[in-house]
Amino acid sequence: MSLIDFHYITDALTPGEALAILKKNAPTKAAREAEMRRDGFPAYTTSAGWLGYDDAKIRRLCREGIAGGWSHFKMKVGGDLKDDIRRLTIVREEIGPGRKLMVDANQKWDVGEAIAWMKELARFDPWWIEEPTSPDDVLGHATIARAIAPIGVATGEACQNRVIFKQLFQADAIKFCQIDSCRLGGVNEILSVMLMSAKFDVPICPHAGGVGLCEFVQHLSIADYICIGASLENRILEYVDHLHEHFFDPVVIRNGRYLPPTAPGYSIRMRPESLDAHEFPHGSVWSGTK
Amino acid sequence: MSLIDFHYITDALTPGEALAILKKNAPTKAAREAEMRRDGFPAYTTSAGWLGYDDAKIRRLCREGIAGGWSHFKMKVGGDLKDDIRRLTIVREEIGPGRKLMVDANQKWDVGEAIAWMKELARFDPWWIEEPTSPDDVLGHATIARAIAPIGVATGEACQNRVIFKQLFQADAIKFCQIDSCRLGGVNEILSVMLMSAKFDVPICPHAGGVGLCEFVQHLSIADYICIGASLENRILEYVDHLHEHFFDPVVIRNGRYLPPTAPGYSIRMRPESLDAHEFPHGSVWSGTK
Repeated sequence: MSLIDFHYITDALTPGEALAILKKNAPTKAAREAEMRRDGFPAYTTSAGWLGYDDAKIRRLCREGIAGGWSHFKMKVGGDLKDDIRRLTIVREEIGPGRKLMVDANQKWDVGEAIAWMKELARFDPWWIEEPTSPDDVLGHATIARAIAPIGVATGEACQNRVIFKQLFQADAIKFCQIDSCRLGGVNEILSVMLMSAKFDVPICPHAGGVGLCEFVQHLSIADYICIGASLENRILEYVDHLHEHFFDPVVIRNGRYLPPTAPGYSIRMRPESLDAHEFPHGSVWSGTK
Repeated sequence: MSLIDFHYITDALTPGEALAILKKNAPTKAAREAEMRRDGFPAYTTSAGWLGYDDAKIRRLCREGIAGGWSHFKMKVGGDLKDDIRRLTIVREEIGPGRKLMVDANQKWDVGEAIAWMKELARFDPWWIEEPTSPDDVLGHATIARAIAPIGVATGEACQNRVIFKQLFQADAIKFCQIDSCRLGGVNEILSVMLMSAKFDVPICPHAGGVGLCEFVQHLSIADYICIGASLENRILEYVDHLHEHFFDPVVIRNGRYLPPTAPGYSIRMRPESLDAHEFPHGSVWSGTK
C-alpha cells in the first residue's frame, strides 16, 4: 500500500478502500494461485486480424486459431466500412456465433463517426470496440459507450496515468480496462489502476502484442486475479504469436491460456544475440550481413 | 480553416461552426485592431505572488504594482493554509476590494482537498483558482468548479492538446482557458482551442511568465480578440517582469497592458550573447567566468 501514489485519485479510491479490497481477497488467494498454475489465464489472439491480410489468409488464420484452442478473436477495423463488413463476415462464418469477436479501431474515428460505424458493425455481435477515438477523450468514450451498448468500449493502451483511468471509471466510459505495462509508469502506477478497476467493477484486460508486452502483462493479469480483481469474468489477456524467440523466458501458451511464468522477474530479459543483431546501425539486421 | 485539424473535436465544433465564428467577427476586426494599437491588451502581474517572498516584500510589491497601473494580482497558494491566509490578508489590505485577486495552486491538491482549501480562501474573494489539481483531470476540475462557484476554475498551461480542452469546455470545468504557447502543438492547435472557446463562451487567458512566454502569447490574445473571441470581458493576459532582456523584440507594457508588437514574427528570437552565456556547460553562466 505504501508504494502506491494516491495523489489525485482519492476522490475515486481512498487508501482505506484499497486496503479493504486486498484484505477481502487474501483468504482465497491460495486457491486462485493453484488454479492459475493448473489452468493458466485465458487469452485471445489478434494474429488473424491485421488490416493487411487478404480474405483467404484471414479465413485460414481463423481456422488455425480454432484448431489451436482459441475462443476470442480480434480484428482491426476503421479503414473502410465495406472492407470491414466483408472481413467480419468471413470471421463470423469461421468462428461461429459462440466464440467472441472483438474489433479495434486504433483511435481512427471522431465520436459521431465511431457511433455511426459501430451501428453498422453491430450485426457481427462484437464484444468490444477498442480505441474508437482519441485516448485522451474520456467524455468521448463515455458518449460512445452510451450510444452503442451492449457493445462494450475498451481502451487504455495509450492512456498515460492513473488520472485518465480514474476518469474513465468515473464516467462509466469503458467496459474493459486495457492497461499497458510500458505506457503506465511502472508496476506501482499499474497497481493503483487495478485497485480502482476492482472498486468500479471494470475488468482488467491488458494490452499486449508488441515485442515483450505479452511477457510483461502475464504477471499483471495473474496478480490481478490472485490479489485484486479476484474474478475471471470478462477478463482476457491479449496474445500475438510473434517475436517471443528474442526472450530468455518467453510466454508459454496452452489451449488459449497463458501458463504462469516460473522464473523470477518480469520475464522480459532479451537474448544478447537479438540485441546485437538489431543494434542500429551496425547490427546484422541493419547492415545486411545476416 | 484548412490549417486546423478538426479530428477528434467535431462533436464539439464543426468546421462550419468555426467558419461562422470568423465570418461573424470579420466586419468589426478593423475597429478592434485600432483599439489594440491605441490601448493595448489588459494584463495581470504574478510578480508579487511567489511563495518564497516574505510578508514585507509581498506588501512592497503590491504597492509597486498598484503604482505601475496593475488592476489584477496573482498569488501562489497551496503550501500551507495558515501561510496562505496570512499572505492573502496582506494582499487584500494593499490592493483593496476593487482590484482582482487570483490564486494559483500549481496542481497541488486532490479534488476534495481543493474544495476544502478554497472554502477557506473564499473570504478573500478570489476571481479564479488556477490549476487546483492534476491537469489531466477534466472531471475533477468540473467537480471543483461546481463546488466553489462563483469562484472560477482556471487551467490549461499543462494541457497537451485540443482533446483535453474540448472536454474542459464540454464538462463546464473551467471559467478561464489558460492556453500555453509552447505546451500545445503550435499555432494551428491553439487556433482550434480558441475557436472552441468562442463557441463555449469561455475566455482565453493565456499562461505566460516563463522565459519568452509573454513574447509568444501577446500575439495569441490579440489575435483572439481581433478575430475569434472578439471581447475583452474576463480576458486578461499574464505578465511577469523578468528575463525580457534576452529577446530582440521584448514585450512592451504600458499601464498594465500589452502594446501590440510591431516587428514581424512571433517575437521570441533570442539575443546570441544570451544563448552563448547560457549554453551548458561552457557558457559563462555555467563556467563562472562571468
